[in-house]
Amino acid sequence: MSSIFGKLFTLTSWGESHGKAIGAVVDGCPAGLEISEEYIQKFLDRRRPGQALTTQRKESDTVQILSGVFEGKTTGTPISLIVENNDQRSADYEQIKDWYRPGHADETYDSKYGFRDYRGGGRSSARETIARVAAGSIARKFLNEKYGTEFNACVSAVGNNALGHGTWDMGHDNSQLSTLNSQLRKSEDSIGGIVDLTIKNPPKNLGEPVFDRTEALLAMAMMSIPATKGFEIGAGFSAASMLGSEHNKLGENHAGGVYGGITSGEDIYCRIAFKPTPSISQLQKAKNKNGEIGEISIKGRHDPCVAIRAPVIVESMAALVLMDLWLMR
Amino acid sequence: MSSIFGKLFTLTSWGESHGKAIGAVVDGCPAGLEISEEYIQKFLDRRRPGQALTTQRKESDTVQILSGVFEGKTTGTPISLIVENNDQRSADYEQIKDWYRPGHADETYDSKYGFRDYRGGGRSSARETIARVAAGSIARKFLNEKYGTEFNACVSAVGNNALGHGTWDMGHDNSQLSTLNSQLRKSEDSIGGIVDLTIKNPPKNLGEPVFDRTEALLAMAMMSIPATKGFEIGAGFSAASMLGSEHNKLGENHAGGVYGGITSGEDIYCRIAFKPTPSISQLQKAKNKNGEIGEISIKGRHDPCVAIRAPVIVESMAALVLMDLWLMR
Amino acid sequence: MSSIFGKLFTLTSWGESHGKAIGAVVDGCPAGLEISEEYIQKFLDRRRPGQALTTQRKESDTVQILSGVFEGKTTGTPISLIVENNDQRSADYEQIKDWYRPGHADETYDSKYGFRDYRGGGRSSARETIARVAAGSIARKFLNEKYGTEFNACVSAVGNNALGHGTWDMGHDNSQLSTLNSQLRKSEDSIGGIVDLTIKNPPKNLGEPVFDRTEALLAMAMMSIPATKGFEIGAGFSAASMLGSEHNKLGENHAGGVYGGITSGEDIYCRIAFKPTPSISQLQKAKNKNGEIGEISIKGRHDPCVAIRAPVIVESMAALVLMDLWLMR
Amino acid sequence: MSSIFGKLFTLTSWGESHGKAIGAVVDGCPAGLEISEEYIQKFLDRRRPGQALTTQRKESDTVQILSGVFEGKTTGTPISLIVENNDQRSADYEQIKDWYRPGHADETYDSKYGFRDYRGGGRSSARETIARVAAGSIARKFLNEKYGTEFNACVSAVGNNALGHGTWDMGHDNSQLSTLNSQLRKSEDSIGGIVDLTIKNPPKNLGEPVFDRTEALLAMAMMSIPATKGFEIGAGFSAASMLGSEHNKLGENHAGGVYGGITSGEDIYCRIAFKPTPSISQLQKAKNKNGEIGEISIKGRHDPCVAIRAPVIVESMAALVLMDLWLMR
Repeated sequence: MSSIFGKLFTLTSWGESHGKAIGAVVDGCPAGLEISEEYIQKFLDRRRPGQALTTQRKESDTVQILSGVFEGKTTGTPISLIVENNDQRSADYEQIKDWYRPGHADETYDSKYGFRDYRGGGRSSARETIARVAAGSIARKFLNEKYGTEFNACVSAVGNNALGHGTWDMGHDNSQLSTLNSQLRKSEDSIGGIVDLTIKNPPKNLGEPVFDRTEALLAMAMMSIPATKGFEIGAGFSAASMLGSEHNKLGENHAGGVYGGITSGEDIYCRIAFKPTPSISQLQKAKNKNGEIGEISIKGRHDPCVAIRAPVIVESMAALVLMDLWLMR
Repeated sequence: MSSIFGKLFTLTSWGESHGKAIGAVVDGCPAGLEISEEYIQKFLDRRRPGQALTTQRKESDTVQILSGVFEGKTTGTPISLIVENNDQRSADYEQIKDWYRPGHADETYDSKYGFRDYRGGGRSSARETIARVAAGSIARKFLNEKYGTEFNACVSAVGNNALGHGTWDMGHDNSQLSTLNSQLRKSEDSIGGIVDLTIKNPPKNLGEPVFDRTEALLAMAMMSIPATKGFEIGAGFSAASMLGSEHNKLGENHAGGVYGGITSGEDIYCRIAFKPTPSISQLQKAKNKNGEIGEISIKGRHDPCVAIRAPVIVESMAALVLMDLWLMR
Repeated sequence: MSSIFGKLFTLTSWGESHGKAIGAVVDGCPAGLEISEEYIQKFLDRRRPGQALTTQRKESDTVQILSGVFEGKTTGTPISLIVENNDQRSADYEQIKDWYRPGHADETYDSKYGFRDYRGGGRSSARETIARVAAGSIARKFLNEKYGTEFNACVSAVGNNALGHGTWDMGHDNSQLSTLNSQLRKSEDSIGGIVDLTIKNPPKNLGEPVFDRTEALLAMAMMSIPATKGFEIGAGFSAASMLGSEHNKLGENHAGGVYGGITSGEDIYCRIAFKPTPSISQLQKAKNKNGEIGEISIKGRHDPCVAIRAPVIVESMAALVLMDLWLMR
Repeated sequence: MSSIFGKLFTLTSWGESHGKAIGAVVDGCPAGLEISEEYIQKFLDRRRPGQALTTQRKESDTVQILSGVFEGKTTGTPISLIVENNDQRSADYEQIKDWYRPGHADETYDSKYGFRDYRGGGRSSARETIARVAAGSIARKFLNEKYGTEFNACVSAVGNNALGHGTWDMGHDNSQLSTLNSQLRKSEDSIGGIVDLTIKNPPKNLGEPVFDRTEALLAMAMMSIPATKGFEIGAGFSAASMLGSEHNKLGENHAGGVYGGITSGEDIYCRIAFKPTPSISQLQKAKNKNGEIGEISIKGRHDPCVAIRAPVIVESMAALVLMDLWLMR
């Protein structure tokens, strides 16, 4: 298990989907930063369901600060954040507890740990990202106040529907997506998507070659988010078909703001691929604990497209990476 | 600076392109593994130039073992490996030492460190990957003897030329590539490429959720290789346009051998995008230390396509990741 | 700030003396270990006040498990433990909030962080050790079930009163100490002490030379407990006046169970020196924020001898060290 | 194995006593520091034998810088340092290779690794400290230039001979010690000793509570030096018999320059206990690989008192700790 992210600005993440609570301990935050529960809540609200292509589970997800903030400001000591779980319907999971849901971590968790909290994916649930968003909100505030750094992510594609860079985020009403939503609910299926991230005004000189390059830590951070399958920075995979004379051009920032692993101060941009939600209610073939093949239907309330709620998670992980590198520089 | 990779199986990498030597210290290797200079040399030879689309620099790159091996076997103590540099032509770099080569880390290094060994990129040179290949050769031997694990990478695309998965590796004679090579030398340009990696028979149960997921550490490892711009695992970016019912299908391994960050024992496959070599002799616009814009031509001997020599580096980084996770499990 | 202890079996500690709660997140615990709130509570009860030479503050210190345990057993996921604070009398601290209490960390915290939760020492309070004891109780259970390892610490000296090895622990009624207690309360003073630790049946082969030697990690662990000033293992300082022929003698274990940093399986024994409680109600010279010298009296309820409650803390830190080394071996 | 010391300013140490070389890789050193082989050599010369109570082995121990320094200054990249071994007399060890030398790590190494370079203790040899001294010389130069920090250690006791604080260091001619030396050579025995360390003008605000307290990291650093058995800071073990009113006194620095784990800028002072050299030529009882008890005499050239050469090692470890904390602050 590795539930700690970062070297100097660290997030310790804990909590199961259907346990008592989800929490984060943030260590290494400089003293004197104004932080309130209301401030953090805004970011948690952005990852809550409630629009097209997301689950109907009701998650109020109210954050409490238990330590590290005194008279409204951080003291430099660890900040403990907690979000209690409610509206859990664990019963949905009992019927299929001996089946390994396809595309899920059920079988690998059982194989590795021999024992597993089967309710809602337990620790492998996307609810774990609450800790990341809460912690990231602190990191981004620090960088924003000091450098004007802004983290902006949006969904740029759902399935084959390219939505255009920067055109779509949560709460946006999009008839194309509403139609897709209806189709998926009808066919009891799910779909993948792509999230684009732009970091404006990042601090320069971040990144510690040769291993803790900025792009390497961003890649790690993004690929640690559940359901991610790909990461690219700057020109990304399209760089593979470019000529050097084209890629090098001054001012075009094909590198995506990072050279030799070090930020230049130019905008950083990345793209992250999300696979389709593995939980679908459509009947599908599955294996069980005895190695038998059968057919299961996964009940419960799931996002038809996990990418929809991912932008704030992507932004948060990016903020954690830059903050940690900032302390290391 | 971060020149240490891994938590329990660690590589400490050191050395500049035009300094006295390049070296690696490998710590955490179990005792009793047979290792010889001849064995390691085979892998270093694979990253040496000498075929189409690679530099004409002559690098003998002979490795010596200085510690950690006694009577032909590892003792569990740190293994120090060293490769002396020769055939350095530092003179090529003196004329442009005040110019920031486009697409290179010259400007960010100067900005971060205030001072830089300008000869051949110094520490940001691809020669640094010698340390990775030497260290990776030890990790892969251990995994191969214990689990039959095999790491196979190949170039799957050069520019727009898709070469087909598994069809092309170093030493292969390919007329299409010879033509491309001539064209690039004539136009004094370079080109990007894609490397595919397949890991056969990986140990199962590797990966430490929620942060040290196997795919997250592989992404970090790959994106720490110079010139990489993208990483994907399993279905990768194409997963974004798949339906859940399609992606989940048992036996199709769209996940690429990793579920919830933990290896299932199935093959792991990844793809890594490399940008075009930034050093080209074609005249190009560049900035200098005073912020002036001018035109420079980069002399010296450079690979027209860095991806060509990358497969053994990609394999080595993957071996380091799996070995470290194996010790952590 | 560094609130994380350990590499593979990690404790993330959080919480201020007079904040809402004190907590611990334990990561890396193997799955399948039976853990209950009642079990952990027994160890917390041992560090609670209530006997000679301890504070009269009433601390019920009731622990709750918030994650990582399912159906009574650990799941391999992070274990979140929380103890709410109550019976805080912050008012005691407001009057002296601009004064730096002698022997305390007030001035260095202010200098380092610029800002401080002055109530009860905030983070530098001994209440922080609740997190260590809770976490340590899990580590010792694992080692006890697997190896029969036992951690036994006791107070061997209070001031000049040598109590004899293994003769005195919490709850013991000792007239000599009762007399000392009365004297100290009358003179409004405090006193130092020494804690002896014996680890029976430690696993052998623990310790990772050359830096993560068992004795080095034990020393670090003990010297991270508030108020500690010295650490020795085996013959300790008396080894300095021994001859080699005497120290080497087979079977006498002058080494204290560790050779070259690696445990031999013999008993490990250590001694830890604690300074006198810095908080005394006797008038004493102090500095304030403006650098002025004055006289202050520290009200509140304090242990006349911090060593008295330390044995369970010492045992807990030792258990965390051995558990972490066990996972690393 | 753990051959890496530090988090941001890291030393990777490698090499066996009778292998080809001993080396250090120092990572995280700021760019622009003037470093030369001559400068480092002065510190290595201080740990070389050649005076009373030290071995007669001839060690020239000449250091070479292989990377990280360009035009006489550090570049911020890893600094590789190497010292070749010579005057090895491995033959001395072959006769007793199946015997576990009492007080040595032979048996625990064999038990842990199953396989061992038996020549001269291999990795557990005091020659490994060459890497620490070389690396420490860089750390202390940085701190000295920036803060005027000075690290001064001396032998304060040899056996029962208290030499007085600060009165004796290497090269000092002391008739009392010459007599002791003769006695020990005659009786083929060895003796322990104590080293005192004073750090003048340390940077203030170093130390990361609650775990990476300055005294905790110093304790760990010192207890990782071969043959150490005890560590104390400030009043140390004598604090245990002090009253609070006495220990707290302003200006008396009984704390040894550290409060709550953070440096105040006052002098830091510590004492470290060294056991007698375990290698003695006197016949002594020993165990062999088959568990049999016999008598062996350890030939070879050994220091009668390891503490004599330890001051520069103690200073070096202290410098590594403060430098690392300085980068973390």
